[in-house]
Amino acid sequence: MLATTATFFELVRDRLSQVEERMRAGAGQHHPNADAAIEHLLASGGKRIRPTLALLAGEMLGAEPARVVTLAASIEMLHTATLVHDDLIDGSLLRRGIPTLNAQWTPGATVLTGDYIFARAAQLAAQTSSLRLMELFAQTLMTIVNGEITQLFRSRRGDLRQSYYQSIYAKTASLFELAGEAAALLGTSPDVSVKPMKDFGYQVGMAFQIVDDVLDFTGDQQQVGKPLANDLRQGLITLPTVHYLEMHPEDADLAHLLEDAHLESQELERLIAAIRSSGAIQRSLDEAGRFVAAAEADLETMPDCRERDGLRQLARYTVQRST
Amino acid sequence: MLATTATFFELVRDRLSQVEERMRAGAGQHHPNADAAIEHLLASGGKRIRPTLALLAGEMLGAEPARVVTLAASIEMLHTATLVHDDLIDGSLLRRGIPTLNAQWTPGATVLTGDYIFARAAQLAAQTSSLRLMELFAQTLMTIVNGEITQLFRSRRGDLRQSYYQSIYAKTASLFELAGEAAALLGTSPDVSVKPMKDFGYQVGMAFQIVDDVLDFTGDQQQVGKPLANDLRQGLITLPTVHYLEMHPEDADLAHLLEDAHLESQELERLIAAIRSSGAIQRSLDEAGRFVAAAEADLETMPDCRERDGLRQLARYTVQRST
Repeated sequence: MLATTATFFELVRDRLSQVEERMRAGAGQHHPNADAAIEHLLASGGKRIRPTLALLAGEMLGAEPARVVTLAASIEMLHTATLVHDDLIDGSLLRRGIPTLNAQWTPGATVLTGDYIFARAAQLAAQTSSLRLMELFAQTLMTIVNGEITQLFRSRRGDLRQSYYQSIYAKTASLFELAGEAAALLGTSPDVSVKPMKDFGYQVGMAFQIVDDVLDFTGDQQQVGKPLANDLRQGLITLPTVHYLEMHPEDADLAHLLEDAHLESQELERLIAAIRSSGAIQRSLDEAGRFVAAAEADLETMPDCRERDGLRQLARYTVQRST
Repeated sequence: MLATTATFFELVRDRLSQVEERMRAGAGQHHPNADAAIEHLLASGGKRIRPTLALLAGEMLGAEPARVVTLAASIEMLHTATLVHDDLIDGSLLRRGIPTLNAQWTPGATVLTGDYIFARAAQLAAQTSSLRLMELFAQTLMTIVNGEITQLFRSRRGDLRQSYYQSIYAKTASLFELAGEAAALLGTSPDVSVKPMKDFGYQVGMAFQIVDDVLDFTGDQQQVGKPLANDLRQGLITLPTVHYLEMHPEDADLAHLLEDAHLESQELERLIAAIRSSGAIQRSLDEAGRFVAAAEADLETMPDCRERDGLRQLARYTVQRST
């Protein structure tokens, strides 16, 4: 798996360094604490999977490299900004094993830093010189924030599977979709590539988030950097739990949880163990696999080149990864 | 003064209603709580001075009305978004006599609502179909947020007057500047009007904020909806205090305050009374008057029409108003 990962990231390695530079480009112009916060966030890494998708797609479709680098930086900054506000709202103290901003700063400073990164992301988006892209950027931001508001006021009534899908679209797939669509917009033949590349981004994003949610149940706690089944502990229903409910509608612990009741530690651990040992995990992974297959199908009409191979690898990587 | 106010607002009354409509246009597409929050914020009013400036300038310069309405809505939404995060950070419970969002909602919901309104503002800005305007929008957002970060980490060292000017530029004048510059960009002769109209916005914005800061010391508490000298009570040094310090460098209470010390209630009231009865208030108003005179000079090369007269009235209104 390491080999697979390396291959497609390798294709855009130089461009990814340019993306990192673009993200830091505003440093020194504003308050040193804003710069320090951005440096802290960027240094803490992340997989850079969204910019990689944009870079591969842009290269495949003949887009001007400098514009694609700017787009990729804009997308990763937007992603970073939403994480800053999310971590504050959730009270998360660690991300990728590194202290979050809100773990170190006041809520006020954290809110403003997130705003500052939003502004940087918008500035980068404007620098792509594509009005349509700017519109998509703003729409995606609305989708993401609306999803977070919906999650904050979520109820357990209604279709759990549908709510789950809506939520991961807003939170993750919408930005992958933007990466694919916007890269195609900057290419030489947007009329034939925007639709498939938008869908490619959507499918990969859905698969990526489903696997994230599976890893929450199965991952190595040390690597994930969070307690096992952290989502469920926070009352968040993800796909493995949805599948488990469909398979075991009689489970009393889960019924209890869905009534918004507080679970005793013993009930919670029993429920987590039950989900982990049920077929719900495999069913969730099968769903992710179907999204990846759809993503690969989207690539069929795209130009045959090594970047297309890279995008195929990227799609597969989302379900093969262990962190 | 009422007559003056009415005249220039009257010129754009219909367009202002269209701006209100545009600000509410996304309603129903997203979470009902986001819509409710926007409705609450918009219903609580405000003077709509920024959109009025943009509308008058756009009309004077032959810009397409629909685009100027979109611009004006974008600017007011951006203003609204920054107020939502500001009130949260400052813990303000009332604005214009009406409960703030953070007085009613959790911090998380308030942060996200602000983000949602930012996204709406960015979407509206993109809908003006001007790339340059989009860039200015993003730059202005960065300037505003950077100003807030600077204020949060402010120190009392350095040049108080310079800090004050930087702070009111970031907080207020930058958005007035955007209103003037962007309206000119959408007009028929941006090459000759962008520079003077940008400066006009800047000058009016500076005057507007200085008068706001004077009214904090002199205004009718009921009308202002805040305790007298609320800024100073929060430790914020505004122009009247800067002037007072220049006139009375020996004042022990003020020296105490500038050492970041906590003032006893008696010291604080004595200092407020001293500033109010000193010439510092008049000196501050004189400064605001000089900004207005500079703004009026910017209008000289603009087309002679009733909208230009309206802009002149608007500039004067910023120093004549009592709320």
